[in-house]
Amino acid sequence: MPSFHERLRRSWQQSGSLLCVGIDPDFERIPQQVAAADKPYLEFGKAIVEATAPYVCAFKPQAAHFAAAGREQELAELITFAQTNYPDIPVILDAKRGDVGSTAKLYAREAFERYNADAVTVSPYLGKDSLDPYFAFAERGIVVLCRTSNPGSDWLQNSPDNEPPTYLRVAKQISEWDVADQCMLVTGATYPDELAKVRAVVGNLPLLVPGVGAQGGSIKEVLRSGLDAHGTGLVISSSRAIIFADSGPDYAEAAAAAAEAAMNEINKFR
Amino acid sequence: MPSFHERLRRSWQQSGSLLCVGIDPDFERIPQQVAAADKPYLEFGKAIVEATAPYVCAFKPQAAHFAAAGREQELAELITFAQTNYPDIPVILDAKRGDVGSTAKLYAREAFERYNADAVTVSPYLGKDSLDPYFAFAERGIVVLCRTSNPGSDWLQNSPDNEPPTYLRVAKQISEWDVADQCMLVTGATYPDELAKVRAVVGNLPLLVPGVGAQGGSIKEVLRSGLDAHGTGLVISSSRAIIFADSGPDYAEAAAAAAEAAMNEINKFR
Repeated sequence: MPSFHERLRRSWQQSGSLLCVGIDPDFERIPQQVAAADKPYLEFGKAIVEATAPYVCAFKPQAAHFAAAGREQELAELITFAQTNYPDIPVILDAKRGDVGSTAKLYAREAFERYNADAVTVSPYLGKDSLDPYFAFAERGIVVLCRTSNPGSDWLQNSPDNEPPTYLRVAKQISEWDVADQCMLVTGATYPDELAKVRAVVGNLPLLVPGVGAQGGSIKEVLRSGLDAHGTGLVISSSRAIIFADSGPDYAEAAAAAAEAAMNEINKFR
Repeated sequence: MPSFHERLRRSWQQSGSLLCVGIDPDFERIPQQVAAADKPYLEFGKAIVEATAPYVCAFKPQAAHFAAAGREQELAELITFAQTNYPDIPVILDAKRGDVGSTAKLYAREAFERYNADAVTVSPYLGKDSLDPYFAFAERGIVVLCRTSNPGSDWLQNSPDNEPPTYLRVAKQISEWDVADQCMLVTGATYPDELAKVRAVVGNLPLLVPGVGAQGGSIKEVLRSGLDAHGTGLVISSSRAIIFADSGPDYAEAAAAAAEAAMNEINKFR
């Protein structure tokens, strides 16, 4: 089995895209005819996966949207659907787990056995032993929070009290811990200067970049700051701007068009 | 409705205990006769809750143990059972969530609406806006990771590169953000000196202290370092040492005895 990084590289090459579609099925925004279905989260997710698959290098379903409604089973079925129909496109489960080792072992099993995700997002706050259970799944990906896209993240991740700032310590440390090509770092599009600093310390480590689209990050700035030496190295995630591009019956076609446009916009600056 | 801190104070007073039982139903350690039940996690959890209720100020079910097995429904039923039968004992859902605001809103709904937990554990890594959706549930508790009990936590939480160390910045900041008596801090029993430093900066803010029992923290040290001005302020959590005190058919009685002994041991040093 190839490493997670190798799978990502193949996906970048085959798709010609750095775009990741985030599947955040906010029930209040799911189109009416889907909301009435027996498994609305699954139906919506499947339609988005099918519509956007030609334009993406990864899918990123977001766990809280399913969990808040008690719809974990639909999340599991959606991941199976994506992997069965698009086996070359990795599925990153966006769960942001983080707990001590004995419990992290259970969260790793949740992500990699129950959901069979190709990768999962996690927090660095508890340190190496809290990540070891994920590393134990040797060909799966571990996507560690580094510099998140939200406005409040400065306080801890980039405090002027800390030198070097915490996000850069995380970047450096994770790239050292990553001996089997498993790790990525979450670095928000809303902070392109810091994205560049992360890139400078991690070599070709792939970065997951949320914050374009609804959150306002500039694709041009992200590409300028974050591409690796091969002109790849980025998984640029957009959720709401794509999956809710239209709320009517043609939502899937609208999502496809939005994904294609985002892919092309990204490729303009590569 | 009283604030979360007020509910905790009442629970300390009524129970005469600072002990919290952590319900981490590791399937491999659940007694055989329970493991064969239709809802083994629920049956085990109910038996533990009933057996230990006289000796605790709080219950802390751990989400990953249920999630890894797809048993969220049993977690929901267990919380309902505890709250119905022991309405004065707060239930802290140990989930350690942490995400940007729009997603945190869904995690807050997961904890406080779907599970109706009285409090939930969360990570500080993303900052204030990632906690706001929890603060919006005004009478619920928010238990923020500060100085965790695991060996690897030093690296980020107590690095010599940072002055003040990150865990103390978290402690200070959370106590400032907590305007409605909602917050607690997770400070591991395995680091009593740092528990004392946290206590010194947070006044009477309640602390959730894991790491006694199986992880080896000293109860005497925890009490010496962590009691507040009223001789309370601590929720001392023990999981495996209590719930798996015996693996045979008398496991519930053994858990009761272990909980009573832990309560008494704690009270010796108050």
